Amino acid sequence: MAIRLVGYSFSGPVLRVIICLKELGLPYELEPPASYQSLKDEDYIANKHPFGKMPVLFDGDFRITESRPICRYLVSKYQGKHNDTILIPNDVHKAGLVDQFISYELSYYDPPLSKLLYQEKIAKRFLNKDPDPEVIKQAREELAKVLDVYEKLLEGKEYLNGEYSLADIAPCPSTYYVYGTVTHSDLWDNRPNVKNWWNRLCNRDAIKKSLEEAKSFLENYENV
Amino acid sequence: MAIRLVGYSFSGPVLRVIICLKELGLPYELEPPASYQSLKDEDYIANKHPFGKMPVLFDGDFRITESRPICRYLVSKYQGKHNDTILIPNDVHKAGLVDQFISYELSYYDPPLSKLLYQEKIAKRFLNKDPDPEVIKQAREELAKVLDVYEKLLEGKEYLNGEYSLADIAPCPSTYYVYGTVTHSDLWDNRPNVKNWWNRLCNRDAIKKSLEEAKSFLENYENV
Ligand SMILES: N[C@@H](CCC(=O)N[C@@H](CS)C(=O)NCC(=O)O)C(=O)O
Ligand SMILES: N[C@@H](CCC(=O)N[C@@H](CS)C(=O)NCC(=O)O)C(=O)O
Repeated sequence: MAIRLVGYSFSGPVLRVIICLKELGLPYELEPPASYQSLKDEDYIANKHPFGKMPVLFDGDFRITESRPICRYLVSKYQGKHNDTILIPNDVHKAGLVDQFISYELSYYDPPLSKLLYQEKIAKRFLNKDPDPEVIKQAREELAKVLDVYEKLLEGKEYLNGEYSLADIAPCPSTYYVYGTVTHSDLWDNRPNVKNWWNRLCNRDAIKKSLEEAKSFLENYENV
Repeated sequence: MAIRLVGYSFSGPVLRVIICLKELGLPYELEPPASYQSLKDEDYIANKHPFGKMPVLFDGDFRITESRPICRYLVSKYQGKHNDTILIPNDVHKAGLVDQFISYELSYYDPPLSKLLYQEKIAKRFLNKDPDPEVIKQAREELAKVLDVYEKLLEGKEYLNGEYSLADIAPCPSTYYVYGTVTHSDLWDNRPNVKNWWNRLCNRDAIKKSLEEAKSFLENYENV
């Protein structure tokens, strides 16, 4: 039965799942919600996501929410079925470290990026609020420290866990937006390991396509 | 080889791992860091946790950090080896939903609890700052909404995923501190499903023992 993914392809958590689906070679149908407001409708809360969020994935009758769990579910169920891309290795230790790096993304990498995105894109576009230069300055400093750690983590490695994995997919959406559409790319470009890692990721077919789709969806989207 | 857990048993993320170790029947040695400051030492950053955090688990020579990934690793490797407690079911769909509920804890349940803990315990004890009643009021309102969702999620169920699982362990540390040591237990007690769930959890041997140990460690601890 078909896989249906509820969400906008440009939303960070949805984009994370889309990259994973494409990497695993899984066909899917994207179902954009009627509007952001509709995520808080009784029907959406009852039948899609109890906290009114996207993405939501339907695999036949089975429903699962939350981007990182959805990705891990897809890997557990489908890895190796449609192609030979490995996103989570079978070895229990290597798999544990993939999970650990996903938690670094969520706990340390994502927060300063979210602050920058909020200040420079979301507050401006959706709330008509001007960015706060002090918050931006602090978020940049926080991000610089985090990227210093990533620079060391990536020393002598092509990808976070050595081999390419789900750990490298997790940070793609936020990196894409902050690196590509606002003015902080210097923070990555100043750090050779981080810079090469990001370039390597952008050259992967599944990631390149997903980011392009997100970009054109966002450009054509009015109703948000 | 022995399992070593670096951290204070009263720290929320460490406590999460301790409950998991006890549930799986795994012996371990707890290694409390010299001080909170020592987490930022060069040696700690290089050999324990690159972001200067606890917990860190050593399983023989294998090192893994971050509480939720550590728990998932322990389950993958040891579940069923020392007793028959199941924390993540084998079925890929059920396992996916355990992971989803852990993400609900992290994304929606934990934030208002962290705000309350920060205001009412951490700011007071470590920074000598008075709590901000406005922040507390907003965090309580946010928590009330989240607990309304949990009340529905738990309808007709003993545990979040039906059977007891890692999904129920994840929220224990923060619930214990906010429910038990500050004055917000009414938010749980007003909601019968949530109240019964929390009572059920507190009656599990592994959880009861872990919380008691955390409490007495905290009472005897000066050097923080
Ligand atoms: N922890 C969730 C976060 C989901 C999330 O925040 N989604 C945003 C995507 S734009 C959303 O639905 N926002 C709408 C809202 O909060 O009303 C995940 O990883 O899937
Ligand atoms: N995402 C991490 C969070 C770890 C964390 O924040 N640990 C606290 C426990 S008290 C810590 O080490 N704080 C000390 C510090 O940040 O300096 C996990 O789940 O393990």
